[in-house]
Amino acid sequence: MTGVSDVRIGLLGLGTVGAGVVKILQARREMLEERAGARLTLAAVADTDLTRAREGLELKTLPMTGDAARVLADPSIHVVIELVGGLEPARTFILRALTARKHVVTANKALLAHHGAELYEEARRSGVALGFEAAVAGGIPLIRAVKDGLVANRVLSLAGIVNGTCNYILSKMTDEGLDFSLVLKEAQAHGYAEADPTLDIEGMDSAHKLQILASLAFRTFVDLKHIHTEGITLVTAQDIDYARELGYRIKLLAIAKATAAAGAAGDGAAGVEVRVHPTMIPAASPLAAVSGVFNGIFLTGDAVGDLMFYGRGAGQMPTASAVLSDVVEIARRIAHGIPALPLELPSVGPTALPLTPMEAIRCCYYLRVTAQDRPGVLSRVAGILGENDISIANVIQKGRGTREAVPVVMLTHEARERDMRAALAKIDRLRDVAAATMMIRVEGGSA
Amino acid sequence: MTGVSDVRIGLLGLGTVGAGVVKILQARREMLEERAGARLTLAAVADTDLTRAREGLELKTLPMTGDAARVLADPSIHVVIELVGGLEPARTFILRALTARKHVVTANKALLAHHGAELYEEARRSGVALGFEAAVAGGIPLIRAVKDGLVANRVLSLAGIVNGTCNYILSKMTDEGLDFSLVLKEAQAHGYAEADPTLDIEGMDSAHKLQILASLAFRTFVDLKHIHTEGITLVTAQDIDYARELGYRIKLLAIAKATAAAGAAGDGAAGVEVRVHPTMIPAASPLAAVSGVFNGIFLTGDAVGDLMFYGRGAGQMPTASAVLSDVVEIARRIAHGIPALPLELPSVGPTALPLTPMEAIRCCYYLRVTAQDRPGVLSRVAGILGENDISIANVIQKGRGTREAVPVVMLTHEARERDMRAALAKIDRLRDVAAATMMIRVEGGSA
Repeated sequence: MTGVSDVRIGLLGLGTVGAGVVKILQARREMLEERAGARLTLAAVADTDLTRAREGLELKTLPMTGDAARVLADPSIHVVIELVGGLEPARTFILRALTARKHVVTANKALLAHHGAELYEEARRSGVALGFEAAVAGGIPLIRAVKDGLVANRVLSLAGIVNGTCNYILSKMTDEGLDFSLVLKEAQAHGYAEADPTLDIEGMDSAHKLQILASLAFRTFVDLKHIHTEGITLVTAQDIDYARELGYRIKLLAIAKATAAAGAAGDGAAGVEVRVHPTMIPAASPLAAVSGVFNGIFLTGDAVGDLMFYGRGAGQMPTASAVLSDVVEIARRIAHGIPALPLELPSVGPTALPLTPMEAIRCCYYLRVTAQDRPGVLSRVAGILGENDISIANVIQKGRGTREAVPVVMLTHEARERDMRAALAKIDRLRDVAAATMMIRVEGGSA
Repeated sequence: MTGVSDVRIGLLGLGTVGAGVVKILQARREMLEERAGARLTLAAVADTDLTRAREGLELKTLPMTGDAARVLADPSIHVVIELVGGLEPARTFILRALTARKHVVTANKALLAHHGAELYEEARRSGVALGFEAAVAGGIPLIRAVKDGLVANRVLSLAGIVNGTCNYILSKMTDEGLDFSLVLKEAQAHGYAEADPTLDIEGMDSAHKLQILASLAFRTFVDLKHIHTEGITLVTAQDIDYARELGYRIKLLAIAKATAAAGAAGDGAAGVEVRVHPTMIPAASPLAAVSGVFNGIFLTGDAVGDLMFYGRGAGQMPTASAVLSDVVEIARRIAHGIPALPLELPSVGPTALPLTPMEAIRCCYYLRVTAQDRPGVLSRVAGILGENDISIANVIQKGRGTREAVPVVMLTHEARERDMRAALAKIDRLRDVAAATMMIRVEGGSA
């Protein structure tokens, strides 16, 4: 296979990120071509909207087309950048590109989380690359770090703030004591949250990213359906306040952990747990300092120890920066006639660790029980916890002597999720308990 | 050039890191070989001490030799890992390996900072790789991030805590209010500081790492001699306390910044400033949270915005992890018969930005003037600053009414280093000033 001196690129989707990619390609052409070792030619740009103005771009100087199929059928194009988003037609576009032996770069985390296995297999079969640095944590070169930088490590755990919208909302609630719904409206007004914010605030976007990252880091296929996913809509300003009083912050974390085999010595791992939920972490932990729209990923490897990566997880230019890092790497390969290498793509089969069912995980818990202030309530709640093998580390009881239900806040020692769920079902059936108990998992040790 | 199915490795230096490399090679052989796409054979291990026991290793199962020259002359060896340390004979070993067209991996930052230009040129000439991920920030995959992950960015600035010894000492001084000399002794007792700590505490080790990182990130040769370097030996517990009172922390930072051209619009940069010195940074900044022996590197790219990398900058296994990430990348190349690519090595010539002389930099300053508490002292100090174009943002004056000299602490607005030096020379000649004024530069905006 001989090299190519002019790497031809087809871009599908000229939205915000697409426009960013074109801008960097134009502004930094010389630098990028030097690194790639080839000319980089933007051969075609396909979008359904050929007229809408894109800030900073002269549309009429671009090779625009309304027909993505034409780009996919053009044998002169080596690399397709998919920035259409969504599941279809993006999936079909990528499959056709791969089958035509075009390399593909995408930022589409929802698509990879749902249909990654199919796409990775097609890429392997066709011997081409499928780059997705931009799909997780935006501009942070995280995928590259996990694939190559940590190659000598077994990843033991990772915990990430990977959704800027949720982190903005929780940070704002923390800093200003405001309620969720108010901050969500404000975030929408500022463009930090979508008009329909469901994917973000219900944790699905974080689950998508975790699917990709955990399948890569733990070398085992993580089925999106098996990621336990809770969003942030139930977190109240009150919970954030109690967390602070106890020395914690509340963050939406995407967590993946190798769990130790029962009785195994050191090296053994029984499975991997994958979950997305609001999490209390010690105020002094590095992730607690990741605020606003920023992302942070904390990762522990058996050789390297603790690592953290921090940066912008979204936005036009950070995402375009990640897309182009993949494009340059692939172009370099094409330019030098480097044959397709065994690809390092996320696992598509359960090759390493099985997933641990959510009911089997263990952690500490924060509980906010809403109870009538009558004698004996705390003792009954504590009794139920005790019967379920859960011991209490800390209790805060406030606002006594009122006729209204008052919050009783508890931190437990480490307990099993199955036991906690059984206990909560009983606690919430107590006559004096006036509302569903709020439960938040605690990670990262005591504050 | 055809591929090789058995990549043969020669290791020079079986010290702490060398032993870590061998341990990971033995424990993770299957995983590493799968990623490399070839067998990885440790063909020779050279050390001057063939008898000292290395924990966790069976020396007699290793291909030990006392003669590094034999390893360098062995035509069957593809990759040499240099972990001898120091300038000579490490420099000669690497040059001979490169000339013999062996790829080289090294963790030797002092050698690269002093003689990198010579080594990079020889690697280019011979068409082989020279990997140095382990030379900067230990286990953090930082070099890879700067080379490949940020390829679409112009790096605007970077600031790093890159010496764990200094960060341990400053963190301990901050947390416990102890003096430098006491903490240094304690750090030596715990093995966090060398018996001769000069390279670390005087900032030279940080300057070595900055030389490598800045030459790579700014694509311009940074002469080690031109890095302004101050250590932490003059920082007192009192300064740390005042910093805290003002909302800052004191860290030893290695800083490189593109400085804007006078009057240039946006994109232009006149030069790059490179300096290592104790620095006051806002307590809320992400680098302020990097404590103990950890490293943290904060980097700003024009597309990606702010990024931070956090992790262990030294230690047996983190450093071995970085060494092996280079070895696997190089082995993959050898295994697939990939011809030598244009290497991405730090610049050896002034190809991009000239260095800005230290006297021309601008920043805010912390000053601790030690003065007799007599009327008019503050006014005379302020007068000298004013004459030198330096305006005061904040003053703390304590311990009045004593006969002893008292500290007068000031924060200035942004000023030019040349003016500050001129002012300090005059201030320290004032009759009422009893000791040399302590000056610490402030970065990262106001607290």
